[in-house]
Amino acid sequence: MSKYWNDKVKEIEPYVPGEQPKDKQYIKLNTNENPYPPSKKVMEAMKNAVNDDLKLYPDPTCSDFTLEIAKYYNLDSNEIFVGNGSDEVLAFAFMAFFSKDKKILFPDISYSFYIVYAQLLNLDYELVKLDDNFNIPLEELKKQNGGVIIPNPNAPTGKYVDIESLRDLVEANKDSVVIIDEAYIDFGGESMVKFIKDYDNLLVIQTLSKSRSLAGLRVGFALGHKDLIEGLNRIKNSINSYTLDRVALAGATEAMKDNEHFEEITKKIIDTRETTMKSLEKLGFNVLESKANFVFASHNKVSGKLLYERLKDNGVLVRYFNKDRIDNFLRITIGTDEEMDILIEKLELILSQN
Amino acid sequence: MSKYWNDKVKEIEPYVPGEQPKDKQYIKLNTNENPYPPSKKVMEAMKNAVNDDLKLYPDPTCSDFTLEIAKYYNLDSNEIFVGNGSDEVLAFAFMAFFSKDKKILFPDISYSFYIVYAQLLNLDYELVKLDDNFNIPLEELKKQNGGVIIPNPNAPTGKYVDIESLRDLVEANKDSVVIIDEAYIDFGGESMVKFIKDYDNLLVIQTLSKSRSLAGLRVGFALGHKDLIEGLNRIKNSINSYTLDRVALAGATEAMKDNEHFEEITKKIIDTRETTMKSLEKLGFNVLESKANFVFASHNKVSGKLLYERLKDNGVLVRYFNKDRIDNFLRITIGTDEEMDILIEKLELILSQN
Repeated sequence: MSKYWNDKVKEIEPYVPGEQPKDKQYIKLNTNENPYPPSKKVMEAMKNAVNDDLKLYPDPTCSDFTLEIAKYYNLDSNEIFVGNGSDEVLAFAFMAFFSKDKKILFPDISYSFYIVYAQLLNLDYELVKLDDNFNIPLEELKKQNGGVIIPNPNAPTGKYVDIESLRDLVEANKDSVVIIDEAYIDFGGESMVKFIKDYDNLLVIQTLSKSRSLAGLRVGFALGHKDLIEGLNRIKNSINSYTLDRVALAGATEAMKDNEHFEEITKKIIDTRETTMKSLEKLGFNVLESKANFVFASHNKVSGKLLYERLKDNGVLVRYFNKDRIDNFLRITIGTDEEMDILIEKLELILSQN
Repeated sequence: MSKYWNDKVKEIEPYVPGEQPKDKQYIKLNTNENPYPPSKKVMEAMKNAVNDDLKLYPDPTCSDFTLEIAKYYNLDSNEIFVGNGSDEVLAFAFMAFFSKDKKILFPDISYSFYIVYAQLLNLDYELVKLDDNFNIPLEELKKQNGGVIIPNPNAPTGKYVDIESLRDLVEANKDSVVIIDEAYIDFGGESMVKFIKDYDNLLVIQTLSKSRSLAGLRVGFALGHKDLIEGLNRIKNSINSYTLDRVALAGATEAMKDNEHFEEITKKIIDTRETTMKSLEKLGFNVLESKANFVFASHNKVSGKLLYERLKDNGVLVRYFNKDRIDNFLRITIGTDEEMDILIEKLELILSQN
């Protein structure tokens, strides 16, 4: 604490990312990273971008990258905004489309950064309670509001909402922006991108961190009506004109081209997820249906907290949230088959001891 | 304009970076980029960082990079904050240390992003008028305020204030944070870093974009009392936990080590600046004394606007500000000797025709 902090800095509770302990090598199943390396073509493009031109500013409009996304999703370039990770894109969207005097709505159990943005920006918000099966009560998101945001699939539950239901939600909220945070959409869900030409209040946010194996590169993007995109650009250009560096832009551009690699690793993760769910169920876990690269599971005998701690002792990191309603669950990232075999083996051991 | 923009997005006037026309190859003397390539060691470190680990998040604490800055400046790691370009660091500092109800002070002619940050954050501000010789009236920055920010050397004038005078300013402002924006300090000025252990209200901001030839990498940092740094981290962690990617971190860390390269290119730029100033003066320019990698000059016969336009026609880009008091000036980045010879040659031609 410093007397020079303003009131906001004193009062905010910043987001806490998943732990990254350095004491030993862990099997990291705690931050939803992809277990497979990025595309070789992406890495080649990045290495080529490490050249004398680094002395020059990058393209502030990120036009090459934007064009590749446009091609991939059959959109126009002015319907695309890119940023330094989808967290930055989300923050800018909160800054651009939500207002102090109008309550925004999001699920009580969802990405924990939303509440941090709302607090930072003094936004009034209401947490809409998931039902007992962790479903999002979509009808409640149709009441008067100043904006709606939901992850699809939801995090940390992994549960997916079909896009026709979400379309109804966008349709019912003509006076506010509905943000669908699709960080995990590529692991079995269908994107809302197909409705972007139909609605001027729909903003879809995606990332290269998960399905494109590029968490280390910090690239995310938003897709929406050109006026929404212009709003995001106005915020960006009031904070930092050049949010993506030359090497990241080169890698990101190539990542949107190499779909063969992307489809291959995504399929593997989906297959491993299905096997893992079955193995967990055999061990006495209740595993929520997941369309993400993680599963959310609680055990019928041993507490989530204990399992988390004992797994850590055994060299396996998973994510545990010490939070009402989900404090008995573990969020487990889907790794390689070999990593998941070790997870199951360690869990068998731990369960036999408790 | 969209009905979904909030009032702030409607009213802000975003920053406009220097133009980057793609119609032909220009000699780019308009965005204060370094004309020399970055260190080969930096590029090697970056290429090595392009590997399978890109699938993993970067270190959110940026500890290796922070440690190198600490070594270079003889500071502790907790006195250092790093970000995605010094623009982002500046924005976070405005968010952390300035408050709505207290007027912040900065020169009327200085980095034009400050006013954008103030508007974005609803901060009350007062532009303190430079004197007729473009000196900053330091006494006026000692009156009651909620914060002070000045670039040293100033941009776009290039004028430098000695650090003892700035120390007095910090000393006189014990109730508010004084930010010294040292983007251009390495081209002949002395850094305020040496006073960081003495004052808990001094924040020094630097960048790798200029003297380290890494505008394309987007890396900046702040140096100050550990409580100020903690305030910046609280803001960062309420917006984006991972602002620097793995490759940028590797390059930035190496950049703080390779001081031989840095000193060599910096000396060349200073030498070229002195030669360029003399050549411009011979052509009838009034050139302000500069300790930056650019000069600010007006001609005694031909208008700044015309010179800017005719130089552009002749393949040389310089920066022109259509703004009261400086609308007869050109801000000219110091390039290589060869580039400056062409500039002078083109100016001779243009002056002979006007």
